[in-house]
Amino acid sequence: MNAAKPLKIALAGLGTVGGGTVQLLAEQAGLLAERTGRRLQLVAVAALARPQGLPVDGIPFFTDARQMAKDADYDVLVELIGGAGGIALDIVKAALERGKSVVTANKAMIAHHGVALAQLAEKSGAAIGFEASVGGGIPIIKSLREGLAGNRVGKVMGILNGTCNYILTTMLEQGRDFDDVLAEAQKLGYAEADPSFDIDGIDTAHKLAILAALAFSMPVDIKAVKAEGIRHVSALDIRYAEELGYRIKLLGVASLTDAGVETRVYPAMVPMSFPLAHVGGVFNAIVTEGDFVGRTVLEGRGAGARPTASAVVADLVDLAMVRRTPTFGVPVRALTAKPAAPADALHSAFYIRLMVKDEPGVFADIAAALRDEKVSMEQVIQRGRAPNQTVPVVMTVHDTGEAALLRAVERIAALPSIAEPPRLIRIEAL
Amino acid sequence: MNAAKPLKIALAGLGTVGGGTVQLLAEQAGLLAERTGRRLQLVAVAALARPQGLPVDGIPFFTDARQMAKDADYDVLVELIGGAGGIALDIVKAALERGKSVVTANKAMIAHHGVALAQLAEKSGAAIGFEASVGGGIPIIKSLREGLAGNRVGKVMGILNGTCNYILTTMLEQGRDFDDVLAEAQKLGYAEADPSFDIDGIDTAHKLAILAALAFSMPVDIKAVKAEGIRHVSALDIRYAEELGYRIKLLGVASLTDAGVETRVYPAMVPMSFPLAHVGGVFNAIVTEGDFVGRTVLEGRGAGARPTASAVVADLVDLAMVRRTPTFGVPVRALTAKPAAPADALHSAFYIRLMVKDEPGVFADIAAALRDEKVSMEQVIQRGRAPNQTVPVVMTVHDTGEAALLRAVERIAALPSIAEPPRLIRIEAL
Repeated sequence: MNAAKPLKIALAGLGTVGGGTVQLLAEQAGLLAERTGRRLQLVAVAALARPQGLPVDGIPFFTDARQMAKDADYDVLVELIGGAGGIALDIVKAALERGKSVVTANKAMIAHHGVALAQLAEKSGAAIGFEASVGGGIPIIKSLREGLAGNRVGKVMGILNGTCNYILTTMLEQGRDFDDVLAEAQKLGYAEADPSFDIDGIDTAHKLAILAALAFSMPVDIKAVKAEGIRHVSALDIRYAEELGYRIKLLGVASLTDAGVETRVYPAMVPMSFPLAHVGGVFNAIVTEGDFVGRTVLEGRGAGARPTASAVVADLVDLAMVRRTPTFGVPVRALTAKPAAPADALHSAFYIRLMVKDEPGVFADIAAALRDEKVSMEQVIQRGRAPNQTVPVVMTVHDTGEAALLRAVERIAALPSIAEPPRLIRIEAL
Repeated sequence: MNAAKPLKIALAGLGTVGGGTVQLLAEQAGLLAERTGRRLQLVAVAALARPQGLPVDGIPFFTDARQMAKDADYDVLVELIGGAGGIALDIVKAALERGKSVVTANKAMIAHHGVALAQLAEKSGAAIGFEASVGGGIPIIKSLREGLAGNRVGKVMGILNGTCNYILTTMLEQGRDFDDVLAEAQKLGYAEADPSFDIDGIDTAHKLAILAALAFSMPVDIKAVKAEGIRHVSALDIRYAEELGYRIKLLGVASLTDAGVETRVYPAMVPMSFPLAHVGGVFNAIVTEGDFVGRTVLEGRGAGARPTASAVVADLVDLAMVRRTPTFGVPVRALTAKPAAPADALHSAFYIRLMVKDEPGVFADIAAALRDEKVSMEQVIQRGRAPNQTVPVVMTVHDTGEAALLRAVERIAALPSIAEPPRLIRIEAL
């Protein structure tokens, strides 16, 4: 195989991931040639400015990525610019239309345009690799598309955003509040100046939409994902969680039942006996439940130049070896849209924190509201007494219909002795 | 692709895994056809007796697996008989010599004959899939061969034997002793009548040898693996571990440093902050450290009909899709034997439990023995006093050369006040 032709790579975007990918291709050139029997050869790079300190000397350089995608002579386009549309989408389309394969780390683009791109790829005989779009270096796309191919998957869920997990882990370890930790994370470069994309769950939603499409063989559908972020998670709730035997994690959860598909992002209390409870800092982890394999958990670094480059290059190695897989695991015509689970099918156990004026009779009103909606309490924590002061009352309720619980909580919120809007956090079942 | 020819499968061995595989192929026939564009078709099965209750009616049946391997018309032989040699090895060789690919769950055979079989496969253009040989349903082979292909791996370690992990977990949860839990596990069918293969670490050694070959691109070398089992792990040590913030797990650990390769199996204390500490019951988990990806952890069911069938079928799906990978990730000629790390390069932190007659001056002798070998103590636990009785003294020592520690412990063991041989358990560093 040593006489085989090199795999010609055109790479667009020399930011964090692009730089890491160029480094990996240079450092591991021998290893990659050994593994694939071919050279993985950078034949063109595109970026706004010529990069400093990267081993790209002598490689044709484009400031116009569109021109590179259209005109350069390559086998595979590596798109590391980012953004759901714009240049990224243009060059990926241009490559696929030419029958050139694409490797990308762009979750927003795959989440918004994945099916259209998969169709283009099928038409032209190209392949799309997007291992780097979810879970950084974790080989989760390969596992879902190939390693678990013999399973029907009923659930896939995970910690998919390192920034949020870093913030929640730091809040727990240092007992600090959200705003404080976020500000520090921004200073340290772990969170963006506009952090909304991460902390409001949008990034997690993109990744979840991709996982759900792969897991359930359905068209990727970002619009179906309901996302709630971590802005409202308080140090107080994190402390109560710990006391109750839980960790609070921002989860993306996709499940497929007879009632339909549910894809949601929310901060959840995860039992300490569950693997996700122990995934700290910038690590990501994905739990998959297949009908034959049972539960698998894959954990690793969810971001960063080197881990993400590892995923990009894994896709390149597949292309070099001519190992092909349909974009979403099955041909586009076999992707079947599945109805969303109706609101009244949703159910969960819950943590509820009320800030209550400590007055006689308050608890009877709260209990009555829950009873009337047939919500059954599991635990209650109320510490000491502080007559006429505002004190936290924390309770957990057993698995219950969400609609009924929300009605009960709405009634509780309206009680005159309730001083702040109630805080609800789902408790993730095992 | 629907018009593509079926993948013709001959399956030998209809025990637990064979039965599960036949079930999976029948139940998921539609899904597999969707994923691969072909039928995965059982064309022959071999077993000692016609099975009851399996969907193999009408499929040609052989009582002589060797005859099936030689004469039947198939694309891939699935070997699920087991054993390092014997029929299993004969039929795998016969298939490969005919240019037919092989899928196997047989860790003993791969650990003992992997390189010879890989050579045969290369010569005849066949492929060998052995995802099911390590970690049951966990896609660890695929991850090492493909998903992490861009990395140099420095360490791979894991909980690789479900029987041992079940016994250790039960000992912890129920405070019971080894012999007691083993007897129960045998009654429940979780452990064999002759449990040596599992509890003495031999099964883990086979799996570790395979992982090390894949991780370090070296010939699989079962003889280089030093294995120590869990017979000597006591409920007392498990309790002390818990108190010190550790869980005891049987680990297979392979590392590659400048000093050479180290492949060892031993019960180790794993810090609670390390993912492996939380892998309970029959679950397995593998930690890999790559130079780009950093640490990844894959966890799942390590045995059982359905999880193992999931892995067997993943290999069949790869073959159906003509996704090919060299047996050990690189061609056999590129597998490079690496020297074993010399004994004086080995080092670790340790837990030491001594049973000591509580007499004046004992502790000074112990401390002197450690000091003379430059072993530095980290923690000591000695509860209360019981003059002239035998009491446990537990200590942990910092990372230290193993040879020096063993010398110190030998001297301690010879002290007249030491009532039982000292117990040493490695503490796994993060």
